Amino acid sequence: MVDIDEATGTTVLRRTSPYRPPGFWRKWLIGRPLPTADAAHQTIPKTIGLAVFASDALSSTAYATQEILLILAVAGTAAFGYAFPISLAIVGLLAMVTISYEQTIHAYPNGGGAYIVSRDNLGDFAAQVAGAALLLDYILTVAVSVSSGVAQVASAFPEFFPYRVYLAVGLVLFVMLVNLRGVKEAGAAFAVPTYFFLAMMFSMVGAGFVRYLSGSLSSVIDPPHLEVAQVASAVTPFVILHAFSSGTTALTGVEAISNGITAFQEPRSRNAGITLIWMAAILATLFLGITFLAGQVHAIPSEAETVISQLARTVFDGRGLLYHGVIAATTVILIMATNTSFAGFPRLSALLAADGFLPRQLTYRGSRLVYSRGIIALALIASLLIVAFDASVSGLIPLYAIGVFLSFTLSQAGMARRWWKIGHLPMGQEVKERGSILRYEPRWRLKMVVNACGAVCTAIVMLVFAVTKFTEGAWIVLLLMPILVWVLSRIHRHYVDLAARLSLEHYGETTRVLRQCVIIPLAGVHRGTLEALRYARSLSDDITAVHVSIDPAEAEAVRQKWELWGGGVRLVILESPYRLLLEPLLQYIAEIAASRQRNETITIVMPQFVPSRWWHNFLHNQTAIMLRLALLFRRGIVITDVPFHVE
Amino acid sequence: MVDIDEATGTTVLRRTSPYRPPGFWRKWLIGRPLPTADAAHQTIPKTIGLAVFASDALSSTAYATQEILLILAVAGTAAFGYAFPISLAIVGLLAMVTISYEQTIHAYPNGGGAYIVSRDNLGDFAAQVAGAALLLDYILTVAVSVSSGVAQVASAFPEFFPYRVYLAVGLVLFVMLVNLRGVKEAGAAFAVPTYFFLAMMFSMVGAGFVRYLSGSLSSVIDPPHLEVAQVASAVTPFVILHAFSSGTTALTGVEAISNGITAFQEPRSRNAGITLIWMAAILATLFLGITFLAGQVHAIPSEAETVISQLARTVFDGRGLLYHGVIAATTVILIMATNTSFAGFPRLSALLAADGFLPRQLTYRGSRLVYSRGIIALALIASLLIVAFDASVSGLIPLYAIGVFLSFTLSQAGMARRWWKIGHLPMGQEVKERGSILRYEPRWRLKMVVNACGAVCTAIVMLVFAVTKFTEGAWIVLLLMPILVWVLSRIHRHYVDLAARLSLEHYGETTRVLRQCVIIPLAGVHRGTLEALRYARSLSDDITAVHVSIDPAEAEAVRQKWELWGGGVRLVILESPYRLLLEPLLQYIAEIAASRQRNETITIVMPQFVPSRWWHNFLHNQTAIMLRLALLFRRGIVITDVPFHVE
Repeated sequence: MVDIDEATGTTVLRRTSPYRPPGFWRKWLIGRPLPTADAAHQTIPKTIGLAVFASDALSSTAYATQEILLILAVAGTAAFGYAFPISLAIVGLLAMVTISYEQTIHAYPNGGGAYIVSRDNLGDFAAQVAGAALLLDYILTVAVSVSSGVAQVASAFPEFFPYRVYLAVGLVLFVMLVNLRGVKEAGAAFAVPTYFFLAMMFSMVGAGFVRYLSGSLSSVIDPPHLEVAQVASAVTPFVILHAFSSGTTALTGVEAISNGITAFQEPRSRNAGITLIWMAAILATLFLGITFLAGQVHAIPSEAETVISQLARTVFDGRGLLYHGVIAATTVILIMATNTSFAGFPRLSALLAADGFLPRQLTYRGSRLVYSRGIIALALIASLLIVAFDASVSGLIPLYAIGVFLSFTLSQAGMARRWWKIGHLPMGQEVKERGSILRYEPRWRLKMVVNACGAVCTAIVMLVFAVTKFTEGAWIVLLLMPILVWVLSRIHRHYVDLAARLSLEHYGETTRVLRQCVIIPLAGVHRGTLEALRYARSLSDDITAVHVSIDPAEAEAVRQKWELWGGGVRLVILESPYRLLLEPLLQYIAEIAASRQRNETITIVMPQFVPSRWWHNFLHNQTAIMLRLALLFRRGIVITDVPFHVE
Repeated sequence: MVDIDEATGTTVLRRTSPYRPPGFWRKWLIGRPLPTADAAHQTIPKTIGLAVFASDALSSTAYATQEILLILAVAGTAAFGYAFPISLAIVGLLAMVTISYEQTIHAYPNGGGAYIVSRDNLGDFAAQVAGAALLLDYILTVAVSVSSGVAQVASAFPEFFPYRVYLAVGLVLFVMLVNLRGVKEAGAAFAVPTYFFLAMMFSMVGAGFVRYLSGSLSSVIDPPHLEVAQVASAVTPFVILHAFSSGTTALTGVEAISNGITAFQEPRSRNAGITLIWMAAILATLFLGITFLAGQVHAIPSEAETVISQLARTVFDGRGLLYHGVIAATTVILIMATNTSFAGFPRLSALLAADGFLPRQLTYRGSRLVYSRGIIALALIASLLIVAFDASVSGLIPLYAIGVFLSFTLSQAGMARRWWKIGHLPMGQEVKERGSILRYEPRWRLKMVVNACGAVCTAIVMLVFAVTKFTEGAWIVLLLMPILVWVLSRIHRHYVDLAARLSLEHYGETTRVLRQCVIIPLAGVHRGTLEALRYARSLSDDITAVHVSIDPAEAEAVRQKWELWGGGVRLVILESPYRLLLEPLLQYIAEIAASRQRNETITIVMPQFVPSRWWHNFLHNQTAIMLRLALLFRRGIVITDVPFHVE
């Protein structure tokens, strides 16, 4: 297709490259490459979407109740009665966050996590903070979930304990590979275990309620011993608040769907919104059910046996098949939770990269249409973290969740500000922002209040978290966050500066190069050199050949041959008393460059010897490569390689 | 200095580069760089020459006697009486080898080890075999001597035993550093311990003879127990021959001086020859003296206590200061022996490299006028060997000495052939060979017979060595030798082939390039691109800009900007359905190249973006580098980098 522009007379040809990637080991590992046109088919239905994006949130039911009880234990077992009211409050918070995100999903149909909402409503700085918080949290989710899953395996089979770091890193790499195959296949692989977990949990909670209503639900037989570090104190508001904030770990992972809207089938906002509500409903039901039943069976929070385990063996009358099913499903879902991060992190990185906060390379989609580089980066950083913390869950947990609540706060504050902007729009007017379109909405005040309350609540939870867990490890996050924000802003500044410097605004008409001054570095006179000379003569008449001499006999041979073959071109023999090749040549070029005229370009024509076998390169000096590297940093010097193939 | 050739009209300018290397850490470590003109001052007198080149040969007196006794022990202690006659035969062999090498030194004043003598008289194949044998032996000398020295330290201080590999590698690196400082300073550093060793050994032998003559020399008090693996057998000729060949380890290292003639002060042949004779005389005296006295004091060969130790404590009446001096000097000389290899190996590598059997880079002398790359290569390979053999002397010893005797044999056979050639020259005629000049010599028959006998004797010793020590490890050397010879010949073939292909014989007049077809790969349209365009327009009017499109919106932006700024130059937009940048571009260039005319060159003008900070490179695609690497292997394509500096 040829397209000639009428006004400027520029010929523009468009053609599709016929290149098809060949099959090789990567194809076997991650599947055949997909063309860009296939992107629409790589979306997923709601049922798979729930498995891909919800496993993180759902897996938190495995430990949230226990976290509440652990804090209340400070005030003695009598305080356990507060657990159910606290969980009701958490479910209230979950509802608020869910409503907020459901609105966000419709407002930002191209993906609208905390980052985009902050960016569009609170400015670049808030966006960077939200981005940094979420990146850290995705990484921590992978490290914590895999370590926790491996810890469950190691509790059941202690012989694996010495290999837990290898096992954890191996699992991270396995999940990475599945994700590199593409979101559709990853979804299919993860749907089965997620639904198995839901089936087991609902069976347990359902059976528990049936027995409760029929009066046959007993207390836990032989419960673990309650270990409390401090002496029993009164139930103060601080203890309640602390228990509440610990329980809110149940909310981690709710963000994921709003970042992954584009992975859903059309109508994607609607499908994503429905999936979010399903997820929140399932999460709330399981969480409340487990907390209520745990209270009824008088479960005791303990390191030795989880509350889920106590509940399961009480409901199912001992350690039978159903009990083991519950434990296995819990283990698997913890590892599955990783997948949510693998779906979310690359998408968020691509968003940040497109806005110039991360290296641009992260916006490229790999051969399977996923952001391969983001997936690989997440796997590597999480593996490093696992190795650094020796796969210890208790070491990693305090770092976790601050980021989530920071992003919740920013997201809801951003939404509140958006309602305020919408409320002040004249009727019928539309304002197009980067991620969404603003239209007047009569009920803006109510919605703004809901979001503002959510922002305040999540901010409080975050603060309580940061204060109570500061010495346990939260300080690492509070230190890393500003560093990460600084890095993002430095990268952004580089791209902005570069764009300004490369910009064609105020760029005058280009002057033509009038004169070329050509320099040919010579090691010897042979066919390769004469090829370079032949090329140089097509450029200019101002040519100088330069030979750096270490050995006078060799210099004399070069001189004699050049007189015969050099076609009258000037030869400079530079004697190098310290037997260096590169430095005298660079100094000579610098001298010539210093005295060049305007509109004169210095071109170094280098005879580039290309041997027929790669190992032959070891038999030759690599001075040409060193010269190229050194000259790149000099201004106004053009380097031309004239290859000479030996075959 | 300008020098215009009258006949061809070619201007040739000669100038000395004013560049002086700056001072930096290397200067502190290995000394200030030396200009080539200083080379004459970096030669050494005979006294230092003895220390540099003789320590290997002299150190063998520390174990040669013991090796003979160990073999004779098979036939019982009565057979020890044969040790002195055997050592006389070995000294006879030493005399033969010494005479041969003394003649060689005068015949080959620019260095004439086995390699050069074989090359000039027996052909390239024999030369490669000699070269390979010597290279292997130099490496083994370093590994064996350092390991043996460290073993002595470890016997005295067992707490060092677990660290022997680190200690050995550390010593190798230390000797490497001293040698990198230059031959003069290395000589000075090593003279003291070598002369200390000689002083201690002569004291011991001298004192021993005085006591022997005065009748006060007793037998060894409390000698170690004689351990013999086999049952006592008769003294067969094989046992005598075996003992003889074991004792010839005393001859290892004699070769070194003939390779290192150029390191001596003028008149260098004379100085080197005198040093060789000194060395042989000292070696013979010590070896005979030790063997004779060992017989008189009835020393027993043993792993638990060396013969030197038994002799020293008998002569010096127990373990006093003088005894400890002998042991310390023996330990130090074993480590010093390494230095002979560090002097010989780089010189031999440079010789082989100059003849095209090893990479040419080995012929360059470093900033201190030594062949730095050879020194570093030796240190690295020897260290690897030490690590591989866990610094075990008994593991390394059987690999050793075959190479030395192979090179002796070839060297003497070569000299015999040289005498034969000389004998058949007409009187007064001179024939110039690569390494020496042939002149008629009346006594050629006698000299030929001497060398031929030497060749036969050393060949027999080598064969006995190879057969008796085959299963102990000699097979490794017999396997490695052909491989090394093959590698040398492959390298040689590469250089010969290359020279033929680069040769200007039968090379016609070069045709001028008539047309340039220029291709500019574009990622976007900005100042850098326009710089490249500006340069391209100075080359040709046939210019095509190519943009590989992944994102249609970006392609449209490129199109619009190009119409404005492209100055009417043709633009091709290549759509890449698999989101690859490099491959479609390469395929397009290949298509253009396939249809190019004769005398037409394709030049790729690449806008090369040079960021102000190195880490900024991580924020950009490195497609340009990949493109360059891929294009180097295509014929007839010239690559031009037009740098654009962002500052």
